[in-house]
Parts: sequence; C-alpha cells; structure tokens
Amino acid sequence: MNQTPATDALEQRFRQMAHLNGASAILGWDAATMLPAGSGDVRGEQLAALAEIVHEKLTDPAMEDLFAAAAAEKLEGWRAANLREMRHRHQHATAVPAALVTEETKTRIASELQWREAKKTSDFAGYAPMYDRMLQVSRRVAEAKAEALKLSPYDALLDSYDPGMRASTIDPIFADLKTWLPDMVGSVIEAQKRQPVLPLAGANLPTETQDALARDMMQALGFNTSEGRIDLSTHPFCGGVPGDVRITTRYGEDFTESLFGVLHETGHALYEQGLPVAWRGLPIGEARGMTLHESQSLFVEMQLAHSPAFMRFLQRNLQARAGLSGPAWEPANLIRALSQVERSFIRTNADEVTYPLHVILRYELEQALLSGDLPMRDLPGAWAEKMQAYLGITPPDHARGCLQDVHWPEGMYGYFPTYTLGAMTAAQLMDAARRDLPAMDHAIERGELGQITAWLREHVHRHGSQFSTPELIARATGKPLDPAIFKAHLEARYLA
Amino acid sequence: MNQTPATDALEQRFRQMAHLNGASAILGWDAATMLPAGSGDVRGEQLAALAEIVHEKLTDPAMEDLFAAAAAEKLEGWRAANLREMRHRHQHATAVPAALVTEETKTRIASELQWREAKKTSDFAGYAPMYDRMLQVSRRVAEAKAEALKLSPYDALLDSYDPGMRASTIDPIFADLKTWLPDMVGSVIEAQKRQPVLPLAGANLPTETQDALARDMMQALGFNTSEGRIDLSTHPFCGGVPGDVRITTRYGEDFTESLFGVLHETGHALYEQGLPVAWRGLPIGEARGMTLHESQSLFVEMQLAHSPAFMRFLQRNLQARAGLSGPAWEPANLIRALSQVERSFIRTNADEVTYPLHVILRYELEQALLSGDLPMRDLPGAWAEKMQAYLGITPPDHARGCLQDVHWPEGMYGYFPTYTLGAMTAAQLMDAARRDLPAMDHAIERGELGQITAWLREHVHRHGSQFSTPELIARATGKPLDPAIFKAHLEARYLA
Repeated sequence: MNQTPATDALEQRFRQMAHLNGASAILGWDAATMLPAGSGDVRGEQLAALAEIVHEKLTDPAMEDLFAAAAAEKLEGWRAANLREMRHRHQHATAVPAALVTEETKTRIASELQWREAKKTSDFAGYAPMYDRMLQVSRRVAEAKAEALKLSPYDALLDSYDPGMRASTIDPIFADLKTWLPDMVGSVIEAQKRQPVLPLAGANLPTETQDALARDMMQALGFNTSEGRIDLSTHPFCGGVPGDVRITTRYGEDFTESLFGVLHETGHALYEQGLPVAWRGLPIGEARGMTLHESQSLFVEMQLAHSPAFMRFLQRNLQARAGLSGPAWEPANLIRALSQVERSFIRTNADEVTYPLHVILRYELEQALLSGDLPMRDLPGAWAEKMQAYLGITPPDHARGCLQDVHWPEGMYGYFPTYTLGAMTAAQLMDAARRDLPAMDHAIERGELGQITAWLREHVHRHGSQFSTPELIARATGKPLDPAIFKAHLEARYLA
Repeated sequence: MNQTPATDALEQRFRQMAHLNGASAILGWDAATMLPAGSGDVRGEQLAALAEIVHEKLTDPAMEDLFAAAAAEKLEGWRAANLREMRHRHQHATAVPAALVTEETKTRIASELQWREAKKTSDFAGYAPMYDRMLQVSRRVAEAKAEALKLSPYDALLDSYDPGMRASTIDPIFADLKTWLPDMVGSVIEAQKRQPVLPLAGANLPTETQDALARDMMQALGFNTSEGRIDLSTHPFCGGVPGDVRITTRYGEDFTESLFGVLHETGHALYEQGLPVAWRGLPIGEARGMTLHESQSLFVEMQLAHSPAFMRFLQRNLQARAGLSGPAWEPANLIRALSQVERSFIRTNADEVTYPLHVILRYELEQALLSGDLPMRDLPGAWAEKMQAYLGITPPDHARGCLQDVHWPEGMYGYFPTYTLGAMTAAQLMDAARRDLPAMDHAIERGELGQITAWLREHVHRHGSQFSTPELIARATGKPLDPAIFKAHLEARYLA
C-alpha cells in the first residue's frame, strides 16, 4: 500500500513544472541564439504563458493541503530534503500574486529590449523611465516575498537566487574585501609593472581555430556532447536543462576571450550534467543556487585554467592547433599575460582581483535602489562616486557605467553578490581538491582533467540541492566559507 | 460595460493555449534541427507536459459553461466566426477521453520508433502487430469523435485536419481523377518520349551556392526574414508560429531538390506570415486546415515555380549564382527536365501527374483499414493490387510499399487526401490569379513575385479561419473546387 500519497502527488506536480520550466529554458536559449529580430513579442508571450502556467500550478490551492498531508508522511532522507525544497519553491511562488508575475515577465522583456538600444547610444536619460519601471516592479516582488518569507525585501531576493543567503552573511565578508582589496589592487599593479610581459602576438586566430581549441578543452573537461551543444550568442551563457545543456560563446579576434569564456560556461555545464539523474525533474535534483553555480564556472576558468600547470597544457594545444610557439607562448609568460590586473570600467572584462570591487559597488547600489534611498535618476552619480572610491576611475559614459549590465534591466536585483561568493567558493574548493589530489598538477599538465571533474562531481554536482550552500561548502572543503582562503589565493597568484 | 464576458474569457483561454502550442512548435523545430542525440527523452517529456496542459485547459469543465453563456452574447462578425472555431476545437478535444489521448500519444511514439527500424529492413511481418495496434487506437479515437461530432468515423478524422471536409465531397472528385489519370499518365509518358531532354549537367552545386539560390527565391517571394528563418533538417518542413516561422531544408548534391523543397516550404511559410496579425493567438487567426496549407506550398512550388515564365527567372539566377549556361539551361529544356513523369513507388518523390494516384490508393485503403474491411495483415496485398491497377507497377518490397509513409505509423488517418485536394486548389487559385493579374508572366520573368504573394495574401492568407475551406475557395476563385481546372492544368503543361 502506498504510504506517501501526498508526497507522491507533490513530486508528480513538480516534475510537470520542471518540464515546463525546461521548455522555457530552451525557448530562452533560442531567443538568444536563433530568434529572428522581429519575433521577440511572440516569444515573450510564449514565455509569459509558460510562467503563468507554472505559477498557477505552483500556487494551486490544493498544494497547501498536499503540503499539510505530506508533513505527516514518513519519508526517507532524500525525499524529506526534496519536500523541504518543494515547500521553499511554493513559498516563493505563493508570495507573489499572479498578476504581478505576469507584469514582471512582460516588463522584463520590454525593458531588456529597450536597454539593448539604450546601451548602444549610452542613453541613460531615454532609458531611465523604463529602468525605473522595472525597479518598481522588482521592489513590489521583493516586498511581497519579504512578507511571506519573513525576511527583509533584499534578503527575500537574495534567497531566490541562493536559498538561505542573507545580507548579514555577506556584509562582513564584503566589508573585509572592500577594505583589503583597493590596496591589494595597487600592490599587484605595482608588482606587475616590475615583471615585463611579452605580448601574445598571433593571438588573433580564425574562428574555426578558436572553435577547435574550445572544443578540445570542453572534451578534456568531460563535457558530454550527446547531451549538450555550443552555439553563438552576443552574451555567452549556459542554458538549457540537465539532459540538454546549451552553452554559448562569441568569437572575436583574440582567442583568449572566447577560450576562457567557453571554459567558464563549461564549468556551469559540467555542474548541470553532473546533477543526479535519479532526481531529475525534482527540486532536489537541481543545482544548489547561483553561488555554487558560479563557483563551478570560476573553478574551471580561474582556479584550474589560470593555473601554471594548465598553461603547459594550453601551450601544447596552441602549438598543435594554431602553430603558436616561442617565448611569448611559454607557460611563465602566458600566465603573466593572462593575469594582468588593471582598473577598468566593465565588470565582465574585469580581472579576478578587481572583480569583487565591481560586485561590491553593485551590491551596495542595488540595496539603495530597492530601499528607495537612491532614486533611479541619481544612479549615474552614485555609480561614478563608488567607482572612484573603490577603483579610482570614473566612467566616461553610461554604457561603461550603469547601463553595462543586463541584470537590473531584467529585474535581477540580488544576483550580483553570487559572483564574488562564487569566486571565493571556487578558491576554497580548489584548496580542498589539491589536498585530495596531490598529483593534480601533473594530470593538468598532461590535459588529463577527468579526475578534477570527477572530484567536483563527487563533492558538489551529485548532491543537487540536498544540502544548503553553507552545508555543502563545509562538507566539500571541511570548513565554512572563509575569506582568508580567497585572499591567500590572490596573494599567492599575484604577489608571490 | 462589458457585454461579452464569456466570449472574452474564452478568447483569453484560447490565446494562452496558442502560446503553449507555439512553444511546442518551436521545441518541435528544435528537436528536428538542434537537439543533441541523447536529449530526446528530456524533450519528449517537455512536449508531453505541454500537450497535457493544453488538453487539460481545453477540456476544463468550466469551458462548457462559458460556451453556453457565449452562445447568448451578441458578437460582431469575426468574433462569431471565432466562437464557432473555438467550439469546434473544444468538441474535438472533449470527444476523446483523457486516458485514450494518453494511450494514443504513447502508442504513436512507440509505433513511430518501431516503424523507423522496420522500414530499414522492409519488415512488414515484424511491424504488423504494432501497425495494427496504432490502427486500433486510431479507430477508437475516430469512433469517439464520430459520436461527439455526429459524423462517420472517417469524416471525423478528415474533419480534424480539414474542418468541414467530408468523404462525400472527396469521393466524386477522386472517382473522376481515378478514371482519367491512368490514361493521362500513359499519354504524358508517350509524349515525353518524343521530346528529348538535355541532362542538367552541372546541377551538383556547393551547399553555399544552393543556399544563396534558395535565399534569393525566398526573398523574391517576400519571405520575411525578420520574422522567420531557414535551417537544416533531415526532413524539410515548415514549423514555428505565424510571427516566428521556421522552415528547413537539406542540401544534397543536386540543387533542384533543395531549391524546389525550399520553394515548397516557403509557400507554407508565406501563408503563416500572411495570417491576420489582429487575430493572432485565436483559432480564427490560424491557417484554415491542411488542404489550404498544401495549396499554398504547391501554388509556389508547382504552379508558380514550374511555370515557363519562372524558368526564365531561374535561368538568370543560375547563371549569376552558379555560372550555369548553355542549351541545357534554356527555359524550354529546364522545364522539360524538371517536369518528367514516371511511374514510381515512392509518393514523396512522385511527379504532379502520378501523385494523385498515390493519394487515392491511400485514401481508399485507409478507409478500408479503419472500417475493418481490410485487416492489417492483408494490407501489402491490397497495396500491390491497387498500385498495379492505378500505376501499372508492383512494389519490390514493403519499404517501397505500405511501409514508406510515416502517417499511418503515427495514426494520421484522414490526412492523405489533403495533398491532392491541395494540388487541385493550387491549380484553381493560379487560374483565378491569372485572370486578376494579366501581366503576371512578365513579372515572374523579371523575378517580381511580390504581386503574386500579395494576391495570395488578399484572397487566402488574410482570412485565417474565418471561412470554411469550400467557402474560401469559392470566394477566392469564383467557384467551388472543380476537378476540370486541375485536369486542364495538367493537359496544358504536359500535353500541349
């Protein structure tokens, strides 16, 4: 006899929602890679309809009864954890009224389209009303969630990207970095001045060569091409679903941008492909929030692929695929050339030393925007002020200032901190992996990256959402997230 | 004050379903063009979830009340027509019990998979039990719809592809063609023997040239690339939704296959792109059944692009794009080479003279299969007998006989007649367009195809599903579908 009818019913409902969300993920990928220029409205309506249905399913009044009944059912370990995750989703969803969900989706699409144009001409004034409209909608979402989850509005948004993440956890970490980093940046720039770098002449490679190099690396890392693909888009990302992972890149002239971009997205992709197949379609089978997701991309891009050992592997590949050789392509010069630190305007182009300052600036400004302390019209001024304070530079236009990122135009407030928390987690995971795999560097030099992917699968991927982010970090690395490890990593790489 | 609340609510519900069906259409296109080899199961679950939701919405018990209330509301012309279409969809959907819908979907997937393998080895005996299982399920669907719609079971299936189409309309038309065509085929083959054809040496063109030629033609016809695209797939088709039309092709060696394939799909695409934007998302805004859809693809492929005037345009393009010139590429030889008639086994490769005989054979056999008069085990014999009677040939194996088409293995009984009804409608539309556009041939020779597309838009596309198929044909051409016009077209092209 069936002992867990309510949990069974919930699991079936969540599987259906997962398939619908999967449909949205593929349609989102299509919108970025394939969609004809004039088809945005139609796609917007499809995505809105799917979001509406999922919201309707998730907020179905019958769910309350099922959750109440499921609470009394005796469940084995993973099902109990999954029930907790299902309830967490349900809480987030029921917090926001259906009409507001629809408004948010429609505003996001209109806002993102208008932002694309505004960014081209650096037109803050023209875009500001829509920018503000999106902010107001996001604030209403935040307030609705805050009330239901008994959190502050900003914590409620953080919680939707990273369940359990709170500003009170982030504040001391960012406060620490914020005081330490500006001096660190200065020291690194001084140190690098004393170490001349041979320019990577010949780095402009044909698209086909860049593509071949990228695919070599994806293969070495174990990306499964029978359940995933790589395509082109303006803004590289990792999309799709665990059984059908879609990463994108863009090929400019210099291969280094595309190569490390692909490595970054491959880190995300490996996480998705490494999630437990048995739990597929259930919340517990999904990736555990954006901090861990970012930790996986940065583990591959920054921890692994910017290591001296990897440079040997890269050197061999560059020689074989592109005929690049000579002193500039020696590992010691390669790593110096690829780890140059500078004070710059664009977050996505920033190096790993200055990047956290870009994030902290946004973390502070988005809280002020949401609380109303900072009116949208004053954003450019506040942005310039903080850029000056943290990085000592002032953006020459809005396109290189507060119009550079897609996040706020899409209403993604509360997302930015996960980049830096992810970078810190990546450093801590590498620190632990090195202890577990003492011969790691020899394997990397030979391009045998499989054991590292296996380590990540074992300690991160296969757990899905079974543990909270802090719990998973502590299990994988033996201790809670510790800024000292990240700082030690930066010192070792840039000041040694 | 709102006077039509029930109709408003129905329209909103149907718009949502249209967006969900649109999502399925794009995911279906993706499955044929982009999907990684190992991701089929995941996609299957996404499509099944979407189909489930749409069926659930369409058969929601609240719909009955809304239809009852809407019947009493005073509606302007197009909304009354749309209400009729909404009710028609609802009747088809509620006719079939949910369990049978699920059984049909599952059987279709299993049957189609097994058929693919059976076709490779021409294994009728091995596939027959599954072939029969699919037939039995299709029969139960037909009977359920027959009861609800008060139609015969076969008419109920016809009606799902072509609302309002009945066997009693088709019977006299096919009876006429069936007695006339076999002799006609003989006469054409004799006549063509007396007219030697220079081989199209040089027709093997690089993929890029074929692609450029195809895009030239799409552009000349007015395909809107800002709301559509063309990609590659094993089996060419026209998919997507009106605001985002996706056609596919495949490039072999000989450009003629891809070029006329693209022209065919462009005909479908122009219909989708020409549907009324104001009615988008409502049943009345959709294409009017498969006969008219096929009439649009065949209008472009066979009526327009196989005309002598078009051959001049094609000749110029082939010279410019591929450097092809000389006597073989003169219009008179081109049209002869591209209009050769022969008795052959495979419907999809058949010319326009023999094609209707392939269809009539299937039309007769599928009625006998559904009624039970023809047991599945006797299908190969009945097939061979009719092939001999209509085309004077006997298939050497089942792969070139009753295993060649995907339709019956997928349970698509009642679909085949639309191919020939579409071909006849195309001929009748061209006949009418020529009367309206006396300078048509001069325009075609110059590649100015816009006025023809405009004629189709005016007389066919813009009406969506406002009129029934017979009504629309009569409005566009001045008379009901008349086999004499199709016969006159064949005589003029092949015996003049």
